[in-house]
Amino acid sequence: MRLRSYRNFGSAGPEAPLAATARCFSSSRPRPLQQTPSQRVKLTSETYPDIKRDSRFSPLTKEHVAYFRGILGSDSAVIDGVTNESAADDIEPFNSDWMGKYRGQCKLVLKPGSTEEVSKILKYCNDNLLAVVPQGGNTGLVGGSVPVFDEIVINLSRMNQIVEFDEVSGALVVGAGCILEVADQFLASKGYIFPLDLGAKGSCQIGGNLSTNAGGLRLLRYGSLHGSTLGIEAVLADGTIVDDLCKLRKNNTGYDLKQLFIGAEGTIGIITKASIQCPQRSAAQNVAFFGLESFEKVQQAFREAKGQLSEILSAFELMDESSQALVGEVTKNRRPLEGKYPFYCLIETSGSNADHDSEKLGAFLEDVMEKGIVSDGTLAQDETQIKALWAWREGIAEALGHLGGVYKYDVSIPLQEMYQLVEDTKARVDAAGLLGDTDEYPVREVIGYGHMGDANLHLNVSTRRFDKRVEQCLEPFIYEWIEKRQGSISAEHGLGLQKKNYIGYSRNATTIGLMKGLKTHFDPKGILNPYKYI
Amino acid sequence: MRLRSYRNFGSAGPEAPLAATARCFSSSRPRPLQQTPSQRVKLTSETYPDIKRDSRFSPLTKEHVAYFRGILGSDSAVIDGVTNESAADDIEPFNSDWMGKYRGQCKLVLKPGSTEEVSKILKYCNDNLLAVVPQGGNTGLVGGSVPVFDEIVINLSRMNQIVEFDEVSGALVVGAGCILEVADQFLASKGYIFPLDLGAKGSCQIGGNLSTNAGGLRLLRYGSLHGSTLGIEAVLADGTIVDDLCKLRKNNTGYDLKQLFIGAEGTIGIITKASIQCPQRSAAQNVAFFGLESFEKVQQAFREAKGQLSEILSAFELMDESSQALVGEVTKNRRPLEGKYPFYCLIETSGSNADHDSEKLGAFLEDVMEKGIVSDGTLAQDETQIKALWAWREGIAEALGHLGGVYKYDVSIPLQEMYQLVEDTKARVDAAGLLGDTDEYPVREVIGYGHMGDANLHLNVSTRRFDKRVEQCLEPFIYEWIEKRQGSISAEHGLGLQKKNYIGYSRNATTIGLMKGLKTHFDPKGILNPYKYI
Repeated sequence: MRLRSYRNFGSAGPEAPLAATARCFSSSRPRPLQQTPSQRVKLTSETYPDIKRDSRFSPLTKEHVAYFRGILGSDSAVIDGVTNESAADDIEPFNSDWMGKYRGQCKLVLKPGSTEEVSKILKYCNDNLLAVVPQGGNTGLVGGSVPVFDEIVINLSRMNQIVEFDEVSGALVVGAGCILEVADQFLASKGYIFPLDLGAKGSCQIGGNLSTNAGGLRLLRYGSLHGSTLGIEAVLADGTIVDDLCKLRKNNTGYDLKQLFIGAEGTIGIITKASIQCPQRSAAQNVAFFGLESFEKVQQAFREAKGQLSEILSAFELMDESSQALVGEVTKNRRPLEGKYPFYCLIETSGSNADHDSEKLGAFLEDVMEKGIVSDGTLAQDETQIKALWAWREGIAEALGHLGGVYKYDVSIPLQEMYQLVEDTKARVDAAGLLGDTDEYPVREVIGYGHMGDANLHLNVSTRRFDKRVEQCLEPFIYEWIEKRQGSISAEHGLGLQKKNYIGYSRNATTIGLMKGLKTHFDPKGILNPYKYI
Repeated sequence: MRLRSYRNFGSAGPEAPLAATARCFSSSRPRPLQQTPSQRVKLTSETYPDIKRDSRFSPLTKEHVAYFRGILGSDSAVIDGVTNESAADDIEPFNSDWMGKYRGQCKLVLKPGSTEEVSKILKYCNDNLLAVVPQGGNTGLVGGSVPVFDEIVINLSRMNQIVEFDEVSGALVVGAGCILEVADQFLASKGYIFPLDLGAKGSCQIGGNLSTNAGGLRLLRYGSLHGSTLGIEAVLADGTIVDDLCKLRKNNTGYDLKQLFIGAEGTIGIITKASIQCPQRSAAQNVAFFGLESFEKVQQAFREAKGQLSEILSAFELMDESSQALVGEVTKNRRPLEGKYPFYCLIETSGSNADHDSEKLGAFLEDVMEKGIVSDGTLAQDETQIKALWAWREGIAEALGHLGGVYKYDVSIPLQEMYQLVEDTKARVDAAGLLGDTDEYPVREVIGYGHMGDANLHLNVSTRRFDKRVEQCLEPFIYEWIEKRQGSISAEHGLGLQKKNYIGYSRNATTIGLMKGLKTHFDPKGILNPYKYI
């Protein structure tokens, strides 16, 4: 063994095996929180008093409700708070996001069971000027899937069918309401994999994934949904059903309309079905976790991994020491490495031959240890250890949630400067006298982690309590910092309500103008997800 | 050695080494043909008398030419056949496609050197109602890049810069006129690869590749340009410069405008620059070529290859015996295998470890031979042999060109029925008394080959001479056959002029209506590539 301090879990001794104690995190993906009325957050309209209800939109009446009941039939498909005040508690989960940051005043939730029902609903809403918010699993971070005022929520969760799967080509057709993990488990039984994976997989729906162009953990390997989506069925604001549900890998017959709906956050149509090109599931998976002394070394490790692991590299994730200390503090689990390092990386490989992959990964780890790029590392020995190591990355969001409020920024920055934003933000908050270990300071910690392979940083500012000075310290500073480096103020979570007004930091006036033109072209009355996006 | 009749080139004996004799094909990728005036094909307007010049468009005058000279400065950037009749021969190559199938009547070719020049040209054309045809390497198959009447050709060949390359992220920014092979060779020097490869790589330009959403040989591995394009700079009909030249892998800030230009064949704007996500170049490459007894066995081999070769599989190409007999007849090269089989497949693997890849490929070949899926096979031993084997696939188009006219159909069909179209077409042409070995029959052969991995068939009907009955026998039969199976009438070559009127076989009225709406939205005067696409 030529590795200096490289050790396996197997030799880590008997006490507090990570695999067992970290297990709790494997179910820690974000889910909508159950809140009691007393815990309810402020209404979005109170938090953002500048946003006014568009008076063009009609208020909901019992006649509207009766019409929708006529369309949808089943009682459970309509949650009516218009004529029945006692339904307010049932509606609350559809009004609020899981972070407890946004809260709308919707009084009617519709759960269509078919594309035709979505079409009838939208046609009626368009004719009668009723605003709507399409909603999937409601796991977004930017307030895109909850109403601001009294928009009708059109929840797609009943349209959750796995419609068909071609075992030769790998083309999967699903309803928009199909939960990502359900689709992935179905595919696993067929030897295939969904090309997207993310923390909220147990709750998020594929229609929402497409509408937000979700990125997640497998983008490094399988690319974006713009590449892996073969076709989409969607309904436009006026009820027109757009059947572009192609199942072919190649089809160059006219404009690629489906692309317009991907990442549009339900503002130009509601996605009802999708056809996805799914890759074959790899037989072998390995995960390594290591500590590094500097961000310069993280970059070196990434370059070496791309070169040496190449086609089997399926994730390269970054975590800073603050994020790992936090997960350790919350979970009380034993840290994967004995020493502390400023940075940690998690590498995952997926391939068809376990021996070949282990040999490549072993050679890579030996090489980066010998060159002094990596200071210490550990390699998961089985599926349980793989999950345990992933929990140190995937558990960060939940651990942060345990400590109080968090300002979350999901951004893209050219790789060389990716971590600098965390340092600059921390220095700024510190200089403003807002950061400290004791209760008098509103900010507890500034934390950075993310998808190194995609230059996608999750910057998190963990706070003890709401303090207006913190937000003023962070914004627009962070957006301006990103603009200077031609980064993106929203890498994978979209614009929603949170970033609507900041799009100018990542897009120029011409492109924003074109977007507004497209919005008007497709939804001239503006009934689809108003007050958000562009 | 457990393989039954498996042999390597190295043991094939001294006579007629394939590697040497097949070399000529490595430069046989399609290029614009040089034609003498006597060889000139019929004008498109004569071949298609139903297409009339749009009288809204102004005829070109010497004042127009003077304006463009004022913008473009350099004499060589303007080829003027308006005021100078002797320029007709210089203009001819821009009027004709390389297959000699379409011929326009353009009298003015403009070769802008910058995005600003493209902008000024288009603004003037839009203001003065002058129709234009954007043109790249002019290597298309459907007449999309040549004029029909007197449209101005805007040729992008001078905008061929490699603008920048990020060696950490793999993001490449190029001018639209950059030749694909030039970009790929540049990337090779940096250890990267262009995610697209196709027969015309020595002539085609990246702007044209994007505008036609070219598929080609690497799509199986690296996906479509909709996934690998990070950003685009384009100019709209009215001269507006759209700078959406993002270099980030993730940027979810508004509609993904760049997607609109990919595959739009220059009908909503002219692409001037592009940013492409390039993968690292694999260190090892292997190519195997084998013969199979049925299309059922081809499908089995494909399924086994996807499973066993998985992440290293980079091409799975199909050729029928007719196509291979033809290449042999034209090149006089020795066939790769001794026996004849109804089908042949070429498999390419690309990976980071030559030993691992060889082991996987060897095990795969042994397995498919033992199972009786593959009847005979050979494996290239070096780079020269790799090129030689590829020549049997890539040389088909050129070999066909040597024999006379060809009706070419580039289509997608669900994999199970992919080859059935060749058999049904052959039976139909035969039943019509049009197919035979002697000169009295207009059709020489019906040939099928293509990208098995993408269910993309190239159906070719090789003719001895033009005979109206052949086209009547083929169309709309082939399109109707494809429509029944929900295939695509244009897998990777676009619509152009050839398939403009057939789009209804692959797209429904609603989506076609939306496309027309988008066209009008972006190019209200219709000056961009009129008479084509939708």
